Amino acid sequence: MPSNTSVIYLAHPHEFPVVGEHLAAKTTKDFNPVLKEGEVLTRNLVFSLDPYMRGKMRDTGKQSYSAAFEIGKPLDARGVAEVIESKNSKYPVGSIIHAFVGWEEYTVLPDLPTTRIIPEARESRLPLSSYVGVLGMPGLTAYASLKDIGKPKAGETIFISAASGAVGQLAGQLAKAWGLTVIGSAGSDEKVDYLLKEVGFDHAFNYKKRSAHAALKELAPKGIDIYFENVGGETLEAALDHLNTHGRIIACGMISQYNTRQPYGIKNLMNVVSKRLTIRGFIVADFHEQYFEDFWRDVRELLLKKKIVYRVDEAKGIAAAPEAFVGMLNGKNFGKQVVQVADL
Amino acid sequence: MPSNTSVIYLAHPHEFPVVGEHLAAKTTKDFNPVLKEGEVLTRNLVFSLDPYMRGKMRDTGKQSYSAAFEIGKPLDARGVAEVIESKNSKYPVGSIIHAFVGWEEYTVLPDLPTTRIIPEARESRLPLSSYVGVLGMPGLTAYASLKDIGKPKAGETIFISAASGAVGQLAGQLAKAWGLTVIGSAGSDEKVDYLLKEVGFDHAFNYKKRSAHAALKELAPKGIDIYFENVGGETLEAALDHLNTHGRIIACGMISQYNTRQPYGIKNLMNVVSKRLTIRGFIVADFHEQYFEDFWRDVRELLLKKKIVYRVDEAKGIAAAPEAFVGMLNGKNFGKQVVQVADL
Repeated sequence: MPSNTSVIYLAHPHEFPVVGEHLAAKTTKDFNPVLKEGEVLTRNLVFSLDPYMRGKMRDTGKQSYSAAFEIGKPLDARGVAEVIESKNSKYPVGSIIHAFVGWEEYTVLPDLPTTRIIPEARESRLPLSSYVGVLGMPGLTAYASLKDIGKPKAGETIFISAASGAVGQLAGQLAKAWGLTVIGSAGSDEKVDYLLKEVGFDHAFNYKKRSAHAALKELAPKGIDIYFENVGGETLEAALDHLNTHGRIIACGMISQYNTRQPYGIKNLMNVVSKRLTIRGFIVADFHEQYFEDFWRDVRELLLKKKIVYRVDEAKGIAAAPEAFVGMLNGKNFGKQVVQVADL
Repeated sequence: MPSNTSVIYLAHPHEFPVVGEHLAAKTTKDFNPVLKEGEVLTRNLVFSLDPYMRGKMRDTGKQSYSAAFEIGKPLDARGVAEVIESKNSKYPVGSIIHAFVGWEEYTVLPDLPTTRIIPEARESRLPLSSYVGVLGMPGLTAYASLKDIGKPKAGETIFISAASGAVGQLAGQLAKAWGLTVIGSAGSDEKVDYLLKEVGFDHAFNYKKRSAHAALKELAPKGIDIYFENVGGETLEAALDHLNTHGRIIACGMISQYNTRQPYGIKNLMNVVSKRLTIRGFIVADFHEQYFEDFWRDVRELLLKKKIVYRVDEAKGIAAAPEAFVGMLNGKNFGKQVVQVADL
C-alpha cells in the first residue's frame, strides 16, 4: 500500500477550528500495517461529519457524553468501509462494514462493539452515505428524540432550527407524516426554498434575514408545541417565548454556541416555570435499544418508496475533510455533510 | 359587621412592588354583604403568601398558569377560614374551610371547586397555618415535584435553593428521608444555621457571602444529581455546571427574576445537551390527583411524630400583609410566609 492520508487533531480550538492549526491532513508513506489478532484493515468509503464532533475538540478533563479527541491522533467518525485485510473472522475480507473509522483512507480497526456488517451494501438501491445519514446516527436521532421527548400529537405545531441539516430535514418530514404543522429555519434562501419546495415544510424562513421571534409571531400565531433545538442562542430564546403550555424542547444541539468564547445569555428561562415546559438533552445511544428497529423499518420504507427526500453534501476526497468540517460549523453545508473518500 | 379591611391590587409593578403604589390595605366601613344562593361569608383566619403570586401581578394579556390579579380588586390567596354565614348547604355555619379567600378579614365566597372543609381543624394538634404550608400547596409542591421530576435515588445528591423557604425546607427533609445527600442555599447565616442544626441538611451556605459555584465545588465534589430550582439567575448557572450526566432540574420557581427589568442571561445551557439534563416546569395542580393522598399520609405522619420541622413566618393582622409580601420577595421571611388574620 503506497500511502495513507489522515486528518490529525493538532490542538484544542477555543473558537472556530482553523485548518492547519487545529486539524490538518497528513500523509504517511509506505503504509504497511501489521494486524494483530481481532483487527481488520479497512479501505474507507464514506464518513460522516457532524456538529457533535466539535464537542470532542476539548480538554480531556471536561465532562461530556463522548470522549475527547486525542491530540496527535487522527480524528474519528462513523463511516462505511470495505474490509481489505482481516484477522477477525466476524469481518472477512470483502465485507462492507459500518464502523467508527479514522478521518483517513485506511484504518486499522480493533474489534469494537460499534462495528457491524451491512449485508445489503453491495446491492443497495440507496447510496452508501445513507448508512451514516438518514439511516444512521442522524436519522435515529431525529426519529427517536422526536418520539421520546417531542411526544408529537397530530394537530400540533413544531419548529425546527437548522432544518435543512442532517437531523432537521428528517425530523421535519417525520413530523409532517405524523400530522403536525412544521416550521423550519435555515441560513440561506436556497435552503429555505429546499424546505418549502422539496421537503414539504409548511413554513420556513432565513434566520439571517428575519429574526426567529418575528417569524414565529407571524407563522405560528397559536404558538408552537415542540421546538427541535439544534442551534441555541437567540433562536432558543425566541422559541421559549413562543412555546405553548406543556411545550417540549428536544435539546439535540446548540451549534451557535460551539465556537465562541462569549456564549449567548438566555434571559427568558422563566417561561419554563410559567408555561410548564420540558427541556431535555439526550444522546442517540440512549434510544438505540428502544427505537432502532422501528426507525430502520419506517424510515427505510419511506426512503425506498421515495416518500422522503434527504439531501447530502459530499466533500470529495480525504484532503477536503478539514475544510468541509469547518464549513459545516459555519453552516456552509447544504444537507447532511459527509466525506466521500473512495468508491466501492 | 362593623368593617372589613382588604388588600387591594392597584397597579402592575415592573420591578419590586411598592406598598401604596401597587397594593394597599383599604377598609370598608359598614360591611354588610347580602349573600346569593351558593355563597358563604368567611371570617378569614390565616392565609398564605407565596412567590408565585408575583406572577399574577401582570398584564392580563400575558400567558401563565394562573389568572392575573385584577386591578381594583382584593388580592387572593389560599387560606383557612370560618364560615360565619352560609347560603350553601355544603358549608354550614361554623365549618372551617380551606379556600381561595381574599387578602382581607371577611370574604364573600362563591361555590368554587377549590373549597373544602377541614373536618379535624378544631381539634387539630397542628397549627392552622399547616393547611396552607407544609400540608398545603407548598408541601404538595415539594413532595410531588421531587418524586415526579426529581426521581430521587438513595445515594444521590440534591441541591436546593431558597432552602429554608416554604417548599425548600420540606423538599430537603424528604430528600434526606429518602437517602440523599442534601445541600441548601439561603440568604442569611441564621437561615443556614437553621438548615444545618434544626432541619438536618448535610451542607448549607449563605449565597450572599459565597458564590453557589464555589460552594458546590467544595460541598459536592462528585457533582449533584438533582437541582431543586427556586431562584434562577447565577444559582441556576452554577447548578448547570455542577449537575451530573442525566441530572434533573425541578423548575419550581425563579424568584430572583420576578422583580427586575433586566433578567439574568444563562450562558451555559449547553450543559443540557452535553450532560443530557432534563429541566421541567410544573404547577402543583398537575400532580394533585396522582400524589395528594400519598403526600397527605406521609407528611402528616412525619409531622405528628415530629420527624420533620417546618418553620413558619407569621405576619400579624391583615394590615401587615402588604409589607410581608414585599419582604418575602426580598427574602426577608424566615420560613413559610403566612398572614395570621384572626384566631379561631
